[in-house]
Amino acid sequence: MSQMSNAPWTEPLDAVLREWAQTAAARDKAGGTAFHERALLRRSGLLRLSIPTEYGGDGAPWSTTLDIVRRMAQVDSSLAHLFAFHHLQLATIRLFGRDTQIRHCLSETVKQGWFWGNALNPLDKSTRVLPDDANNGYLFDGRKSFCSGARDSDQLLASAFDSEGKLLIAITPTNREGITVLDDWDNMGQRQTDSGTVIFERVRIAPDELLNDPGPLSSPFACLRPLLAQVILSHIYIGIGEGALQAARDATLAQTRPWIASQAERPSEDPYVIAHYGDFYVALEGARLLCERAMQLFDAAWRRGLALTESERGEVAVAVATSKVAAARAGLEVANRMFDVTGARSTTAALRLDRFWRNVRVHTLHDPIDYKVRELGDWALNGRVPKPSFYS
Amino acid sequence: MSQMSNAPWTEPLDAVLREWAQTAAARDKAGGTAFHERALLRRSGLLRLSIPTEYGGDGAPWSTTLDIVRRMAQVDSSLAHLFAFHHLQLATIRLFGRDTQIRHCLSETVKQGWFWGNALNPLDKSTRVLPDDANNGYLFDGRKSFCSGARDSDQLLASAFDSEGKLLIAITPTNREGITVLDDWDNMGQRQTDSGTVIFERVRIAPDELLNDPGPLSSPFACLRPLLAQVILSHIYIGIGEGALQAARDATLAQTRPWIASQAERPSEDPYVIAHYGDFYVALEGARLLCERAMQLFDAAWRRGLALTESERGEVAVAVATSKVAAARAGLEVANRMFDVTGARSTTAALRLDRFWRNVRVHTLHDPIDYKVRELGDWALNGRVPKPSFYS
Amino acid sequence: MSQMSNAPWTEPLDAVLREWAQTAAARDKAGGTAFHERALLRRSGLLRLSIPTEYGGDGAPWSTTLDIVRRMAQVDSSLAHLFAFHHLQLATIRLFGRDTQIRHCLSETVKQGWFWGNALNPLDKSTRVLPDDANNGYLFDGRKSFCSGARDSDQLLASAFDSEGKLLIAITPTNREGITVLDDWDNMGQRQTDSGTVIFERVRIAPDELLNDPGPLSSPFACLRPLLAQVILSHIYIGIGEGALQAARDATLAQTRPWIASQAERPSEDPYVIAHYGDFYVALEGARLLCERAMQLFDAAWRRGLALTESERGEVAVAVATSKVAAARAGLEVANRMFDVTGARSTTAALRLDRFWRNVRVHTLHDPIDYKVRELGDWALNGRVPKPSFYS
Amino acid sequence: MSQMSNAPWTEPLDAVLREWAQTAAARDKAGGTAFHERALLRRSGLLRLSIPTEYGGDGAPWSTTLDIVRRMAQVDSSLAHLFAFHHLQLATIRLFGRDTQIRHCLSETVKQGWFWGNALNPLDKSTRVLPDDANNGYLFDGRKSFCSGARDSDQLLASAFDSEGKLLIAITPTNREGITVLDDWDNMGQRQTDSGTVIFERVRIAPDELLNDPGPLSSPFACLRPLLAQVILSHIYIGIGEGALQAARDATLAQTRPWIASQAERPSEDPYVIAHYGDFYVALEGARLLCERAMQLFDAAWRRGLALTESERGEVAVAVATSKVAAARAGLEVANRMFDVTGARSTTAALRLDRFWRNVRVHTLHDPIDYKVRELGDWALNGRVPKPSFYS
Repeated sequence: MSQMSNAPWTEPLDAVLREWAQTAAARDKAGGTAFHERALLRRSGLLRLSIPTEYGGDGAPWSTTLDIVRRMAQVDSSLAHLFAFHHLQLATIRLFGRDTQIRHCLSETVKQGWFWGNALNPLDKSTRVLPDDANNGYLFDGRKSFCSGARDSDQLLASAFDSEGKLLIAITPTNREGITVLDDWDNMGQRQTDSGTVIFERVRIAPDELLNDPGPLSSPFACLRPLLAQVILSHIYIGIGEGALQAARDATLAQTRPWIASQAERPSEDPYVIAHYGDFYVALEGARLLCERAMQLFDAAWRRGLALTESERGEVAVAVATSKVAAARAGLEVANRMFDVTGARSTTAALRLDRFWRNVRVHTLHDPIDYKVRELGDWALNGRVPKPSFYS
Repeated sequence: MSQMSNAPWTEPLDAVLREWAQTAAARDKAGGTAFHERALLRRSGLLRLSIPTEYGGDGAPWSTTLDIVRRMAQVDSSLAHLFAFHHLQLATIRLFGRDTQIRHCLSETVKQGWFWGNALNPLDKSTRVLPDDANNGYLFDGRKSFCSGARDSDQLLASAFDSEGKLLIAITPTNREGITVLDDWDNMGQRQTDSGTVIFERVRIAPDELLNDPGPLSSPFACLRPLLAQVILSHIYIGIGEGALQAARDATLAQTRPWIASQAERPSEDPYVIAHYGDFYVALEGARLLCERAMQLFDAAWRRGLALTESERGEVAVAVATSKVAAARAGLEVANRMFDVTGARSTTAALRLDRFWRNVRVHTLHDPIDYKVRELGDWALNGRVPKPSFYS
Repeated sequence: MSQMSNAPWTEPLDAVLREWAQTAAARDKAGGTAFHERALLRRSGLLRLSIPTEYGGDGAPWSTTLDIVRRMAQVDSSLAHLFAFHHLQLATIRLFGRDTQIRHCLSETVKQGWFWGNALNPLDKSTRVLPDDANNGYLFDGRKSFCSGARDSDQLLASAFDSEGKLLIAITPTNREGITVLDDWDNMGQRQTDSGTVIFERVRIAPDELLNDPGPLSSPFACLRPLLAQVILSHIYIGIGEGALQAARDATLAQTRPWIASQAERPSEDPYVIAHYGDFYVALEGARLLCERAMQLFDAAWRRGLALTESERGEVAVAVATSKVAAARAGLEVANRMFDVTGARSTTAALRLDRFWRNVRVHTLHDPIDYKVRELGDWALNGRVPKPSFYS
Repeated sequence: MSQMSNAPWTEPLDAVLREWAQTAAARDKAGGTAFHERALLRRSGLLRLSIPTEYGGDGAPWSTTLDIVRRMAQVDSSLAHLFAFHHLQLATIRLFGRDTQIRHCLSETVKQGWFWGNALNPLDKSTRVLPDDANNGYLFDGRKSFCSGARDSDQLLASAFDSEGKLLIAITPTNREGITVLDDWDNMGQRQTDSGTVIFERVRIAPDELLNDPGPLSSPFACLRPLLAQVILSHIYIGIGEGALQAARDATLAQTRPWIASQAERPSEDPYVIAHYGDFYVALEGARLLCERAMQLFDAAWRRGLALTESERGEVAVAVATSKVAAARAGLEVANRMFDVTGARSTTAALRLDRFWRNVRVHTLHDPIDYKVRELGDWALNGRVPKPSFYS
């Protein structure tokens, strides 16, 4: 996709990827928190990638940030997710928060090297907001599931529902009193995303820690937040597919004996083996271009800021949904079928090649693909763009 | 795809498409030569679209020319093919011929409104080249099949094999003595492409009518000719798919009663109907972007001229092949499955909605998709770009 | 499927199929009523195949009757449909009618060689029943669409709705006063099923011509009628797929030159060509066995008569729906993809090989496959058998 | 499939399955040898299931034995494989051995409760046969991979190649001097099949321990051995698919909240969820019937014994190959797509629902499905039955 060979982040990124790659299979087995690899990421400077230069960041456009997410996902899709969601939290502050909040959070992220975690799960209604009259503030109370990257984080975005059912989102240091981040994520895939539980016990939130000005989905521009979350997923799915393809290729090329019924000299010359690779390539290349298109539109929409219209947001939403469906299908297809070209010996536990499928299988369940297809059908048939929500 | 609303050809194109659309179903039934619709095309000025401005043409890039081919194919894929192959003949002269040939042919096409037909079929070995010693020239002799657009044409490119098996390509007026264009094309699809037989009976060809300087596939640049032919096909497949989708949409929206077992109020709200449209959209949008990418690379390669390297040509070839596989699959899928959303009444012969499937089914057999997939697999697995040939 | 080589109908069937085959392509082009081929069917004795021996018929079980439908559909799916629906009308009388009606209709069908047509379309609400007080009877009045086989028929089953919305079904000679059978069927496929319009103008129906004792869907046994209609469709879809496969095979084996990029000596040794045939075979064989299983259960259910329980009917309904989904998919796949193995020349209009696709495409729209899949999902997930209706 | 409710093995089988089910997920995690579960199998009497009554066995036909394999695979596909391959070794003796060998091995298996392991891998050429002149016998020497069930076994069938490249197969107690069974199987799926390495260090084999009379593939009857191995795989793939479907169903029915964009009351009423189940059912039911058909033919062929003709064997081979392709596809599809209906929470490592995919993914690589499809294509197109080999 986009060329970045001369960018300041090229070398640090390559270094990070090299180190991650060496332990990716072992860490998939171990699960748990990737402290060392997260530390590499902090040191690399990549956590300030999307932050505008005026706050000391690299000012990379979202297309560039997500292209790096994709490259990370080729190697380790758990860490790619943590990296992407760090930037998603920063985007959320920029979309939902006041100028002072934006300036403070982004500048401090650069200065102090903050790593942001996610405790914002709008489907989880078990965290409530209580009044904290003593302090003219709020108390967040309850359990929250699927809090990716909360472990080993410095700052969190946390959501809760008030007594009227309104979703409030707060900025809080992870180490604030009353917050306990559990180490309870143990999943069949995406094993190092730390997407476990965070417990909030009457955690004090000051009014100026709330992102309610302009607040969630308050404008077409603010509606870009869920679209960014969705298109992050697209990039991760493609990255996993590309990683799987590369691993398959290594395995096929390393084999010397074709199947006994094949007339080819080597597996890499077998007509059926080659055809599978052709299918993989077509699927991934199509998904890649749909992602590129979505990012062109997304970058342009982001630059429009509050001037963004509903119909312009709708156009981005269609492109993002299309990229997501195609990327999910391509990632799953390659990760599932790669074994048809690598042969029986590639299933040894030592290689853990099944991690590509486990990762993409888990991640494509973030929200159902069927309902993305439905959104696109509603667009193609009825001319309706996806309705803004936390998943569109 | 690309926006062309202010271009000089916008209005003539719209006019042509409107007229074609009114009779497309009837002409699909009748078959034969579309004299009236070809005449509209001549008058529209679109036959000079790709011709450089220095020769009096519109100087449109190939991406624009093929985008128009795609739009034509939405309405009438036979005429889209004839239009595209007219421009392919002109491209062939530019790639294989001398400057004087290029200047003459392109200028005269503009001045005299020539419509070019195709008698260049490199798989058909039954036309031979004999020496014409009396005239220091050549005699083309034999039958040639699949000569799209030869009927009602002014000029032809014709191929023949000499006694050493070398392919020669000649420019000749269609009405030259010894040439008979048969009206024998009767096919299940692409019924008005006039892809019938041309008989050559000792047709005299002068040396300066041969495109042998630099000649076929003589350089990476000359190898763009088959790639242009291939990517024309991609655009036609997508156009057919888009036309099918539009026809399906009209039919679905016109229905008022959903299937009795559906709980939807209207067919357009049925969850399964909507999901089909989502699938159609994802398939077509992916193919469209693959075509756009192929054309970006193609336009750039064309501008490179003889400086084009083998590996640059290879990159174009991969992009073209990818677009072709995705476009063929998308076109076939939509044209085959559109009936699942239009219902039983849409199969009345009056609508001839089966023409989309018949057209794309016939046209996707131009050369086998299986071997395009194989080329892409060879690229993805073995890093080999498609080998130059008349189909790659 | 089942072996019938010594059965009395073997020779007449073979003779009929031989004659039909010679003109199938030409009659697909012509459309209209196949008077000659219907006459062959009358003379063959096959119209009494399913009629019990006590009424002079051959007493063939439904599995045998439908296996013959499948074999007919290999050659001509329009005539297979007319033959099957003739027997479906007879089954309807046996399931919905009184003993006297059954005895009369079946005996006379044998004696007089009646060919039954269908004017029973429970979705078409435009035919009403009016009281005929003068004659203590009824008047059927209105237009009815999709009346397969009404042209050139001797007897009809006709449906109409009374003022309370109840469906009444009547037996009537086709030539009764007030009945006009239009010659208005012109469709993209199934072109000789004569599924056009029948106009009823105050057609007198006597009380003993109504099949209301026990009447439609009056018992689990009576609910076998829609299941028979559905499983007839399964057999026709498979027959079309088998006919397409045979035609494809003839075309592939007749070719001598493989594609230029193939290393095979002949197309029939090309690895991709062979793989397509493998896919076709797996699809058709699976569908065939699902049909066999459905017919085993159907025959057994038929023998149970009024003792048939709801859950036994449910088991048949599941098997029938499964056969229908698999058969529709297999038929469509083979008819759509057969061209990938027959090559470009097989698309000549002279062969009309597209008729397999047009026929199966039209016929699989009888009722939506999506809702059959849904029924099966409801069974697999929720344990609910398909609810009795005129389509389940 | 076939009903066995009154058979003597019904109760022991149910007991075994109940116990296995309780620990299946935990043992998938642990890997290694399932000593306890193998012991249950020994005690259950099921190891004598296929042994003819004359030798003290239950005399169950192969269709029954494999139906039990399928039911085992629903619960634990590793143990199903070990059970099936135990019986495959016994079948091998019956097909390749002399009467005295058959009588001895089968009787002793019953009397002593032998569990047979597999060290017969005809693709692994690293085990050689050396002459043992001192003892007028042979020495087996070398390493053998993929020796399923060799660990904790009593007897082995072992293969080796002599100096002329001929495959010899020997019967040997597992504890014979020179045999070392390694505990080195650690795979992404089928984790308790113990398919590791067996080392043969100059292991003495007496002439009467060789199965060379009549020997491997010596007759159409002896060629049933690879077909039995193949159709065992078909049953395991279906069993895994059925187990996956059941696990998915439990998960879907346990959910109470549908996806937020769904209008259904419960996930089990969601139209897309239901449709997935419909697809799963159609795929599995088709594969089940193809297996039944293969076993009908196989049982009949087995009863024919040495009278079995080449063309009869060919018919079995086609049916077996068809069942294998359909079963592999159905198993993979259900195991891959089950998560689309179970939702994100079902991916918790505690459930280990990914084991169905890992198991079927690994097991379907036993030999390439592509070449089974090719065999069937060669049958459908060229009328050639699969050529006898150790995989057909």
